[in-house]
Amino acid sequence: MSAALAYATHPSPAADACRGELPLTLPLRHAGPRSVVLRWELRGDPNLPVVAVLGGISADRHVASSAAFPERGWWEAQAADTFDGRCVLGIDWLGADGTLDTAIDTHDQALALAAVLDHLGIARLAAFIGCSYGAMVGLAFASAHPHRLSRLVAIAGAHRPHPFASAWRALQRQVVVLGQLQCAETQGLSLARQLALLSYRTPEEFAQRFDADATLDGGAAHCASEAWLGERGASYARRTPATAFLRLSESIDLHRVSPGDIRVPTSLVAFEEDRLVPVDDIRALAAGIAATVRLHVLRSPYGHDAFLKEPAAIARCLRIALDAEAEACA
Amino acid sequence: MSAALAYATHPSPAADACRGELPLTLPLRHAGPRSVVLRWELRGDPNLPVVAVLGGISADRHVASSAAFPERGWWEAQAADTFDGRCVLGIDWLGADGTLDTAIDTHDQALALAAVLDHLGIARLAAFIGCSYGAMVGLAFASAHPHRLSRLVAIAGAHRPHPFASAWRALQRQVVVLGQLQCAETQGLSLARQLALLSYRTPEEFAQRFDADATLDGGAAHCASEAWLGERGASYARRTPATAFLRLSESIDLHRVSPGDIRVPTSLVAFEEDRLVPVDDIRALAAGIAATVRLHVLRSPYGHDAFLKEPAAIARCLRIALDAEAEACA
Repeated sequence: MSAALAYATHPSPAADACRGELPLTLPLRHAGPRSVVLRWELRGDPNLPVVAVLGGISADRHVASSAAFPERGWWEAQAADTFDGRCVLGIDWLGADGTLDTAIDTHDQALALAAVLDHLGIARLAAFIGCSYGAMVGLAFASAHPHRLSRLVAIAGAHRPHPFASAWRALQRQVVVLGQLQCAETQGLSLARQLALLSYRTPEEFAQRFDADATLDGGAAHCASEAWLGERGASYARRTPATAFLRLSESIDLHRVSPGDIRVPTSLVAFEEDRLVPVDDIRALAAGIAATVRLHVLRSPYGHDAFLKEPAAIARCLRIALDAEAEACA
Repeated sequence: MSAALAYATHPSPAADACRGELPLTLPLRHAGPRSVVLRWELRGDPNLPVVAVLGGISADRHVASSAAFPERGWWEAQAADTFDGRCVLGIDWLGADGTLDTAIDTHDQALALAAVLDHLGIARLAAFIGCSYGAMVGLAFASAHPHRLSRLVAIAGAHRPHPFASAWRALQRQVVVLGQLQCAETQGLSLARQLALLSYRTPEEFAQRFDADATLDGGAAHCASEAWLGERGASYARRTPATAFLRLSESIDLHRVSPGDIRVPTSLVAFEEDRLVPVDDIRALAAGIAATVRLHVLRSPYGHDAFLKEPAAIARCLRIALDAEAEACA
């Protein structure tokens, strides 16, 4: 048992969570062996069943707040009581720190997670719960390490990228490169994030939220959502290295898993309004998986971002999946 | 009668079409009086009923080829026999030459068309047929000059922009500005056009047309549609001044017409898959128009661009509209 886990299993009153870093050499699929640092966080007693919880490309190892790490996590709304009785493992994505400027794919991320599990002495996950990019990594992990998870929950992710979504991402990356070439990296990254946001949301949400009228200001027209988008883009650009965005965005387009290679019980969640991962692609995935599959198709005006914005509906799906897993283990 | 029209009414064997330029001062809504040059083209005998035919922001006065101007027009496929027995009037958009760097809106374009009609001695159009931006201008023209057209045909355009489409355009303009600030205007404009193209098309078309697999080339991934998009963007950027794109894109977001101000018989065409001008907005327009309305809702994998890509279906709608107009005049 590693020092990190020993610390976690003998918690002080405040140590309801712990974090660590793991430097190692990983054999990457496209780039060969590379020195990387893997960053993980455990929330809850690691003697409980462990669930890995992984989000989109902008998510990190901090899934939800704890006494030890009180800042809000990326899935704070979801963590309220969904994960009671379980220990939550999060990781920072390989490449998220911006130091790895090479092609990374979802199979590399799966390998990174397996290395973290080895390090922490976790032989098997009770569940792998992945959203968006995390769902793709979950599929890669399940196909490569079927003995290391009892159940896969893949939310808003499929076995392959959709060609339209890939085009959208390719143009976002070109906007970043345009900025970089011209010494305006932050501006380019902010714009790319705003373009990505449009693909995460829906016209229905915008119609409810923003007026159709533009305002003329300083001789140029500005539409009602521009300030909101700009603020979101700038905030993202402040906290994200451009290389991380480029390599993780690209990683989605390099993703490919054969559904027939998934041989663990799987729960899939799709959103009818998702413009990035069409429900038909998730249906095709469900049809191909070589194990028990439960597919939940939900509706939400938030489209792809429903995995962040619909905690109650997601909680119901997670409860069904986790109960099924607990029952199978009982 | 102007010299230009006299020329057209006494054609030499080759003069089945004529073009002209009209310099004048126009009182623009947002910028006040401005010196502009209006460019028009007439195709066919101007003693026949005249139909104005206006397209998207990248269309021009050359609707279709003629003996006089044999190059392909922007609506070549449509013009085969749809406009037999009629004279087609096209104009270049105000601002299309890039010399007018000020806010322009669809009411300004309607005023420009009225000035061209005055110049050519055309008291009344048999029909105004507008697609996309042309449809918006048609609505503005019909609301301001109801006595100057017998029928409006508005294809893939509504009385107001959709907030989601406005956000999409606002980000495209920001990409152009990013390029301009950094001495990479052509690159920024090309990228903006490619982003616009995504909004004109559909995921269904991309799924049929492009593979989901990305290829790694020079250390970066490229998706299957990237070369096609890049070529289209570069071609557009070569022929379009950045200022023209910025001001015409903005003009869409400044567009607003009250449906109740439309008091001429109107045919509306909407496409179910249009992601830029949702069919619901065109239904709302249809419900508000204060005259006879016929709404055609068509399906096409080309989305908004169906106005260019579905000539047979469009021809059927145009035939119904033009027959109705001819009958009303008989």
